[in-house]
Amino acid sequence: MAAEPSAHALIAKHRPTLDQALEAIRTRAYWSPHPEHPKAYGENGSLGMAEGRAAFDALLGTRLDLGQPGTDDWVGGEVSPYGIELGVTYPHADLDTLLPAMKAGRRAWRDAGAEARAAVCMEILKRISDRTHEFAHAVMHTSGQAFMMAFQAGGPHAQDRGLEAVAYAYAEQVRTPDDAEWTKPQGKRDPLALTKKFKPVPRGTALVIGCNTFPTWNGYPGLFASLATGNAVLVKPHPRAVLPLALTVQVAREVLAETGFDPNLVALAAERPGEGIAKDLATRPEIRIIDYTGSTSFGDWLEANARQAEVYTEKAGVNTVLIDSTADYKGMLSNLAFSLSLYSGQMCTTPQNLLIPRDGITTDQGAKSYDEVVADLARSVGGLLGDDARANALLGAIVNPDVKSRLEAAASLGEVALPSREITNPEFPDAVVRTPVIVKLDGARKYWEGAEDEAAYLSECFGPVSFAVAVDSAAEGLELLRRTIGEKGAMTVGAYTTSEEVAEAVEEVCLEECAQLSLNLTGGVYVNQTAAFSDFHGSGGNPAANAALCDGAFVANRFRVVEVRSEALR
Amino acid sequence: MAAEPSAHALIAKHRPTLDQALEAIRTRAYWSPHPEHPKAYGENGSLGMAEGRAAFDALLGTRLDLGQPGTDDWVGGEVSPYGIELGVTYPHADLDTLLPAMKAGRRAWRDAGAEARAAVCMEILKRISDRTHEFAHAVMHTSGQAFMMAFQAGGPHAQDRGLEAVAYAYAEQVRTPDDAEWTKPQGKRDPLALTKKFKPVPRGTALVIGCNTFPTWNGYPGLFASLATGNAVLVKPHPRAVLPLALTVQVAREVLAETGFDPNLVALAAERPGEGIAKDLATRPEIRIIDYTGSTSFGDWLEANARQAEVYTEKAGVNTVLIDSTADYKGMLSNLAFSLSLYSGQMCTTPQNLLIPRDGITTDQGAKSYDEVVADLARSVGGLLGDDARANALLGAIVNPDVKSRLEAAASLGEVALPSREITNPEFPDAVVRTPVIVKLDGARKYWEGAEDEAAYLSECFGPVSFAVAVDSAAEGLELLRRTIGEKGAMTVGAYTTSEEVAEAVEEVCLEECAQLSLNLTGGVYVNQTAAFSDFHGSGGNPAANAALCDGAFVANRFRVVEVRSEALR
Repeated sequence: MAAEPSAHALIAKHRPTLDQALEAIRTRAYWSPHPEHPKAYGENGSLGMAEGRAAFDALLGTRLDLGQPGTDDWVGGEVSPYGIELGVTYPHADLDTLLPAMKAGRRAWRDAGAEARAAVCMEILKRISDRTHEFAHAVMHTSGQAFMMAFQAGGPHAQDRGLEAVAYAYAEQVRTPDDAEWTKPQGKRDPLALTKKFKPVPRGTALVIGCNTFPTWNGYPGLFASLATGNAVLVKPHPRAVLPLALTVQVAREVLAETGFDPNLVALAAERPGEGIAKDLATRPEIRIIDYTGSTSFGDWLEANARQAEVYTEKAGVNTVLIDSTADYKGMLSNLAFSLSLYSGQMCTTPQNLLIPRDGITTDQGAKSYDEVVADLARSVGGLLGDDARANALLGAIVNPDVKSRLEAAASLGEVALPSREITNPEFPDAVVRTPVIVKLDGARKYWEGAEDEAAYLSECFGPVSFAVAVDSAAEGLELLRRTIGEKGAMTVGAYTTSEEVAEAVEEVCLEECAQLSLNLTGGVYVNQTAAFSDFHGSGGNPAANAALCDGAFVANRFRVVEVRSEALR
Repeated sequence: MAAEPSAHALIAKHRPTLDQALEAIRTRAYWSPHPEHPKAYGENGSLGMAEGRAAFDALLGTRLDLGQPGTDDWVGGEVSPYGIELGVTYPHADLDTLLPAMKAGRRAWRDAGAEARAAVCMEILKRISDRTHEFAHAVMHTSGQAFMMAFQAGGPHAQDRGLEAVAYAYAEQVRTPDDAEWTKPQGKRDPLALTKKFKPVPRGTALVIGCNTFPTWNGYPGLFASLATGNAVLVKPHPRAVLPLALTVQVAREVLAETGFDPNLVALAAERPGEGIAKDLATRPEIRIIDYTGSTSFGDWLEANARQAEVYTEKAGVNTVLIDSTADYKGMLSNLAFSLSLYSGQMCTTPQNLLIPRDGITTDQGAKSYDEVVADLARSVGGLLGDDARANALLGAIVNPDVKSRLEAAASLGEVALPSREITNPEFPDAVVRTPVIVKLDGARKYWEGAEDEAAYLSECFGPVSFAVAVDSAAEGLELLRRTIGEKGAMTVGAYTTSEEVAEAVEEVCLEECAQLSLNLTGGVYVNQTAAFSDFHGSGGNPAANAALCDGAFVANRFRVVEVRSEALR
């Protein structure tokens, strides 16, 4: 298991952090090695705010030459949701050259062993961390996230999820020892004795299919889980969000080359507009693992057709918050208002359906009718986003025209409790910035009565659209919650209740339908945010996603263990 | 996590053994709590030899009423490969009644927690262990294994594999704690603080599709992995091998009921002759996990069609032994002779293709030509099976007419080096007992030259048929080995060589193609045998099987973890 000397140095450098990560996933207590505050960067080799901005600006209009084999052309064309044309071009790969080249370094990477691979992955993450300010701009100008969110979610939080995957991958690979002596007594005869060697072997080349909204956060778990378990990784970014993953690939290739491994263990597959290479790639025999974040239709297609690969998908769902009662009405409203507003609701974890009893709820401020709750929530969102500067800092930009169309169409689905408002971004006048719309629907009006309410709230309406769904009772809300998770899936479920009985009932629905539940959040943690090393993102047990970030199942089948046994020498 | 009091007592009883099992899968050293010697039974509540036989005899001709809901009829009709009609009938289930009934006890089983579930599973295994003599006859008279093998492989070795699955399932479920306090510093502000609960939840109902040859050994890993992770388990035995699994279900239901759980968490789905319920069952929405051992065609069908379930398959492969050179010619020959003879080669792990350089090999007895090696091996098999009593004890009976037909057809595939011999079993005159045939083929004669050699050695010929394939060199043998594993899959690979270079090369082929390798076995361990807690059975990385027995990947996706988080109380 000889690793390159420099990999050994990296083990010494990163082992303490790996041990902390291993401890964190065991205790699920708060931990992160990646600072969240922009001012924490700028020393010890990391780029500060101005340096990061300058580094990003210097990238614009350039060719990002990754030195990949089989580059037959250069492609690009990203336009920021904030209106900037990035003008960066990327290698377009001849896959018949690139994919075979990605095999060449696999043996050395495999033989380096789990610890050296973890250390190399951690060095990649460390160098990305040092460039967090630069990555923040790259994420902002591809996803449309506001700068602070792009910085945190695209930087330290994404790096946390990558490191979490490395830790799980390492732990899984060392569950079986490298060697064993096996001696079986045979009564009076000599014992049977074998020497056994065990080695984790990769499945082959892994494919990461990136998404538009969270290129790094959703891309890193699969990328690092596959790489840390010995696979080569081909990254196919979303055509609108190439830069953050191209930079990631660039860093990975640099670190691999410096530590004596083949840089082609990580490569980029950028595509021409409309080329749609994901389907071809996903069914190539070389591709043995796929990580995907995106639409349900393509996720389902991958699960059905990429039969040669292990497929991990995060698809769409319909997230629900059940509002039964609260001991902190103000806290509930402000918590929900923030959840609906953050990144214009363009998160797979944003609540869509707010189920509210039509007879109202009890609160510390007295009884509130359905209409009052909806109006108060609308007022709370309005207040949160009343100041345009603050609104811009929270909302970011609408990521693509489809989201804008859905938002505009939502107003016709029912009575509008809070209309969407257009906001100007003074720094980026071309940015499309919109506040969320809240539409009232009725959970009792069924489609067989000609009503469209049910069709609306039982479909994912990705973007800044929420439905205040009137239900007959908490019990009816629970049944709708059960049905929504079971049929449509959910990345998150929220509930507000002061009743132990209702809390137990909603918990039971979530246990049975397998969804992650946030109960009575009224402070600074929101239903749409999860923390690596502690919270699971998705459950892997309902239609929204077939895997959770990150657990044993996410890594255990990315490698296999090969055993070589022979007669023990006496 | 309140478990029934009696489950608590079982935890106290079995926890020390569970801890030993957890230690064994970590060290891979020899360990088993289940005695292999028939004489070890008969005390401390276990059935002795005569009692076991009597218990089996008492079962013949009876109705095995499991007390299952939805029993609409009674079915049976097993005929032992030794000629006995078992005459046992089993409940035939109305699945629309049985499957819903299997849900009823799931919540209590889930809430009992991982440790209580492990203890209940271990009690089931303990009671099965106490009846090992009885099970041995049941396995013998359904699989055709000789008594001693049915006793060991169907008894302690199967129980070991079941316990191994319980240990892996337990370890996987307790990787995440039940509770966590999460406190995130916020500079000068109050920290964010959440209380988190984590609970393993089952996927639903699991289906075990049993096989004819190893009903318990191949059935127990999936059964216990699914049950220990909180799922209900429906067992669909092979129509020719119902009794061992029906008895298993009976014991499981008894233990569940005694410990206050719903016995319907484990049930049997026996079928009428030709009814073929596996396809219907496998695609029912209630079935979320499937464990299958059997033909490649049905395994592939399950993987493609049972899309609502996690599917674990062990299918067919073509096992190879490369013979390059040896320092113990006699040991090699006797080891191989035993491997080819055991249970008439009716094991998924029996070597089929023996690759031998046409220019011969070097040995401690001097150089041996291809013809000499084949003749010496034939003589070794002939000697091993020369005595009819010993032959009967090793060979068992041919399990079904298909195996007999393949054996008879094999003689026409090439020059017969060792003809199959018919042996009479004095105790069971109707048993079909045959010694293995060894046929010479040529690895250089290709199908495009009109030769059928390649078609023969690249197909699985399940049963007592081996091919001595002449290859141009060890290097050509390695390429054929690589191709065979890659295209056809392999449960086992063996190799004999004194050359470090060849040993490394064969090891590299096995690492790249993902197959388990036994090197230079010349003593009392055989390529077709694996030991639970130490050896992996299959790799899960080549076409012969998509899972290995038993590792983290075998259990990690049989449950999901649901998290409930709420504001921490201050």
